[in-house]
Amino acid sequence: MQRIALIGFGTVGQGLAEILLQKENELKKKYGYEWQIVAVSDAMKGSVFCSEGLDVPQLLHLAKENTSLTNYVCSKGCNSREKGWDAVETITKSNADVVCELAYTDLSTGEPAITHCKTAFETGKHIVTSNKGPAALAYRKMKKLADDNNVQFRIEGTVMSGTPILNLVEGPLAGNTIHSVKGIMNGTTNYILSQMEDGMTYNDALQKAKEFGYAEADPTGDVEGYDARAKVTILANVVMGESLNISDVSCQGITEISLDDIAKAKEKNARWKLIGCVENIDDKINAYVRPELMPMTHPLAGIMGATNAVTFNTDLMGDVTIVGAGAGRIETGFSILTDLLKIHKTT
Amino acid sequence: MQRIALIGFGTVGQGLAEILLQKENELKKKYGYEWQIVAVSDAMKGSVFCSEGLDVPQLLHLAKENTSLTNYVCSKGCNSREKGWDAVETITKSNADVVCELAYTDLSTGEPAITHCKTAFETGKHIVTSNKGPAALAYRKMKKLADDNNVQFRIEGTVMSGTPILNLVEGPLAGNTIHSVKGIMNGTTNYILSQMEDGMTYNDALQKAKEFGYAEADPTGDVEGYDARAKVTILANVVMGESLNISDVSCQGITEISLDDIAKAKEKNARWKLIGCVENIDDKINAYVRPELMPMTHPLAGIMGATNAVTFNTDLMGDVTIVGAGAGRIETGFSILTDLLKIHKTT
Repeated sequence: MQRIALIGFGTVGQGLAEILLQKENELKKKYGYEWQIVAVSDAMKGSVFCSEGLDVPQLLHLAKENTSLTNYVCSKGCNSREKGWDAVETITKSNADVVCELAYTDLSTGEPAITHCKTAFETGKHIVTSNKGPAALAYRKMKKLADDNNVQFRIEGTVMSGTPILNLVEGPLAGNTIHSVKGIMNGTTNYILSQMEDGMTYNDALQKAKEFGYAEADPTGDVEGYDARAKVTILANVVMGESLNISDVSCQGITEISLDDIAKAKEKNARWKLIGCVENIDDKINAYVRPELMPMTHPLAGIMGATNAVTFNTDLMGDVTIVGAGAGRIETGFSILTDLLKIHKTT
Repeated sequence: MQRIALIGFGTVGQGLAEILLQKENELKKKYGYEWQIVAVSDAMKGSVFCSEGLDVPQLLHLAKENTSLTNYVCSKGCNSREKGWDAVETITKSNADVVCELAYTDLSTGEPAITHCKTAFETGKHIVTSNKGPAALAYRKMKKLADDNNVQFRIEGTVMSGTPILNLVEGPLAGNTIHSVKGIMNGTTNYILSQMEDGMTYNDALQKAKEFGYAEADPTGDVEGYDARAKVTILANVVMGESLNISDVSCQGITEISLDDIAKAKEKNARWKLIGCVENIDDKINAYVRPELMPMTHPLAGIMGATNAVTFNTDLMGDVTIVGAGAGRIETGFSILTDLLKIHKTT
């Protein structure tokens, strides 16, 4: 029985809870995987803990009604319930085996996620997170702390959650040396560029991306390439074994691409794509995010809409490319589940 | 220390041995993986066994010189050497933990590979194989026998060895229900169709495929779709949990596609591709291999040359596509290595 604490109960946390409920029998039958959510702590929604496992439909109901989790009512009559713990207390005092860190994080400091991860490791709990902060800003330190405490630091959800690339490298590609990782790592900007291919202006395409929920109200992180840059940093550190910081990755977004640029590219039978790349050339690491002109014959040129695609150049298998959806509520929830299953299988 | 017996020492067996040698230090450092090849048995090249591990460079040298393995000379002066064992004796009497079944197999009977697998399981040895026979003709039976004997039946190399799709499903996609698996599963025919797109006749393209080593002297297995059909059968059984036989999969190859058909498709902005598919529609399984007209906007339309691509339609992650090289000496060798590493990690 895997006991889970959720730090953050927004879109991703609720998506995960829904998947766990919906797949409860299937996961037990197929993988022998059984779980309990013993704690939820959310900065806005309050917190609740029960060492014997919380009633997940009730948690989801409270969240959907926008009611505080302190209104949770235990139907089992157990005595171990606690309300009002903050995130650190929840991590320290709960009997969880795994902490899912799904809260908001400041990408310039990585906090509060870095503190949450440290606290979990120091109290012997695994971390599964979709937060880029700890992995992009302090990967080596976090990994070492996890290793030292004999627990896992799992971050599939931090990089293209609809496309399981970290687990692809760890599992099916294991044994290869990876020379480069290159691809379309941000669905929002690829959606905007795809709309511009059809003649829409940048501003109209951005507006449409917001309407579909691909772009945030403040789209800076996507359109300036910062989101892709954090992913490149994580890939460099996890896949290529480097110790890069976000600031080591040069970064240019798509805001200066005009309809005229796109028309000119078309004449040359090519397409502009926002490319993230980390490559090892003669033992020197080159990492960047920038718009690149891809010839139409290149596999990445054909990737349209809010889709991600990454090509690994390997020593034994040549190029292996994986294409999948960008982040979404269920996709990110799944990326957390996949890491929970990994912990289940390996502990 | 994983002790390996190789049944078959042709292209794939030698490719594997080369990779193991070349990556010896890296595999030890990165995965704690250490190995010995304790036995090699090949129907043409003879056989040799040493319980303390054979000298791999010498084995490769003998194979390259086309000299019988019975000329092997032990430099360690150990006494446990045996020569002349056939495959079944090698499996039964050697001290191997894992048997790599890499010999020639008749796809109508699955023999002698099925006997080799049975023998290995019954004597408590894992099987890693790139032979389609056991998996396409007797998957359920083999899997059960392996399970009953608490050993593994690993077959990544049977389906597109340059593209690790079985391990992708078992690992990174675990937790998803897979509704369909559809793709370009035979590199040779995709190469021929790609050449025909450029105006070459079928016969000239086939000739060129033979020159490049993509097509065998007798290309029937590829061009009639039989190779793809065996892969569809294996995917149905392993990925979708079915119990199909090869004969349950309808099959049509590319021999009737003319340059005229291809030109007509081009006018409609489409391309002919040889598609293998297994799909679950309302709990009914539909499995086939046939040429399909793919619109140029479809991701599979852009896959050219001796490349494979498979799209999984999943419940949580939507479509996930993986693109990679078809089979080759090193790629297939790698697919064996990846299964050896899996056994190392999970036992």
